[in-house]
Amino acid sequence: MELDRLIEEITRQVMKELGEQTGSALFGTTSGYNAEYAKYVDHTVLKPDTTRSTIERFCKEAREYEFASVCINPTHVSFAKELLKGSPVKVCTVIGFPLGATTPFVKAAEVRDAIANGADEVDMVINIGALKDGDYDLVSRDIKGVVDAAAGQATVKVIIETGLLTEQEKIKACLLAKNAGANFVKTCTGMAVGVATPEDIQLMKKTVGSSMEVKGSTGIKTREDADRLIKAGATRLGTSSGIDIVKGISSQAAPSSY
Amino acid sequence: MELDRLIEEITRQVMKELGEQTGSALFGTTSGYNAEYAKYVDHTVLKPDTTRSTIERFCKEAREYEFASVCINPTHVSFAKELLKGSPVKVCTVIGFPLGATTPFVKAAEVRDAIANGADEVDMVINIGALKDGDYDLVSRDIKGVVDAAAGQATVKVIIETGLLTEQEKIKACLLAKNAGANFVKTCTGMAVGVATPEDIQLMKKTVGSSMEVKGSTGIKTREDADRLIKAGATRLGTSSGIDIVKGISSQAAPSSY
Repeated sequence: MELDRLIEEITRQVMKELGEQTGSALFGTTSGYNAEYAKYVDHTVLKPDTTRSTIERFCKEAREYEFASVCINPTHVSFAKELLKGSPVKVCTVIGFPLGATTPFVKAAEVRDAIANGADEVDMVINIGALKDGDYDLVSRDIKGVVDAAAGQATVKVIIETGLLTEQEKIKACLLAKNAGANFVKTCTGMAVGVATPEDIQLMKKTVGSSMEVKGSTGIKTREDADRLIKAGATRLGTSSGIDIVKGISSQAAPSSY
Repeated sequence: MELDRLIEEITRQVMKELGEQTGSALFGTTSGYNAEYAKYVDHTVLKPDTTRSTIERFCKEAREYEFASVCINPTHVSFAKELLKGSPVKVCTVIGFPLGATTPFVKAAEVRDAIANGADEVDMVINIGALKDGDYDLVSRDIKGVVDAAAGQATVKVIIETGLLTEQEKIKACLLAKNAGANFVKTCTGMAVGVATPEDIQLMKKTVGSSMEVKGSTGIKTREDADRLIKAGATRLGTSSGIDIVKGISSQAAPSSY
């Protein structure tokens, strides 16, 4: 079967390249303020009890540090859009989050609503149970429905929830996301087990190739964490520690969660 | 302000009655099989990686033990409905779950979709951030939208997520749910902090009065847990330990999580 051969080949390449990784710093500095990191950061606050004052703070910080986006729950999209008016910072929200266990109809409706409210980017969670059941048709329809609803008006990131998947399932999820026309694959919701690891980023990048990007999320607390994931192929990082990363706070100051 | 007086009065009454609680067993037995408990149980499986075989098992168990319902994610509603055909077991699903931070439009769309797929009961999460912001209009519209979408075809339970709320916020949330015409208030999602406690059940029951019911959920593992919550006023229990509760497994065998 072609998929099995592909998975074997990808896994072999990833393992080889991981053996070759070096420890050198990105962007020429190992510590201190470095604005280069800002463009990687989706400045993220998804706690269920987030208030408007927290959204105000995150939007203000995102403007100041020039982060790629603020990543917030759907209820806050229109408020964030208003706060970020005239800035290049995108409004990113989440769809079917964090369980991914809703229907394609609902996920597509969420996307249309989010775009109507001002969302520029939508991070959707796949139907994880369906992937485990081998129901690739449902997983695909679910992602495709989101891509169609986004209709080129919003960037679509597909969260595969790496902590709950086998290596084979990770690869299959990435291939299905690619086939459905999504823009990114993304590691974790932060609400299940698992964090973004360089191994997963590299596996995902290898699987999707140059036409898609990879976002690491969960457990990214320091510049060292960011460096490892960017070297592995991540072009976006979901984190609430973006300011520490730009300022160059090292793992001595704030221990990484992995 | 009338609300403040009401809250004070409710709190005083609850504290008084909690002091008077006795430790006697419900239904005349302290251990051993007791089918009386089954009608309280929403047999619950909400993990994001739940497969069809798990849904089959839960539906089979719910039929066998005559639980009130199976409580499952929206993606499994039509399958569970098919499996439970001809049985009195209800299909319960979750809305805006577990963060509650979507929009009223999306929650109402989810309810309509769930009912079209066969849901008999919908457990929705309130907009917790809006409650903390004092935006009672949004919290109310959100619940009312779900009640209207259910249109008498589905029982509406309102999850207030007790673990994230102050006493005053719990009471306010219950009053808003009552005012919106919901059928139940419910303690927790199981995905944030906090478990169902007798204190919260009693506070919620006292607040909503006789026209509404109270569901305890999260951390309910043994018959002793069930007894405490039922005595406090719960008429439904969200748990994956319903079989242990009916069989009379005590906390010696399976320690309670609170």
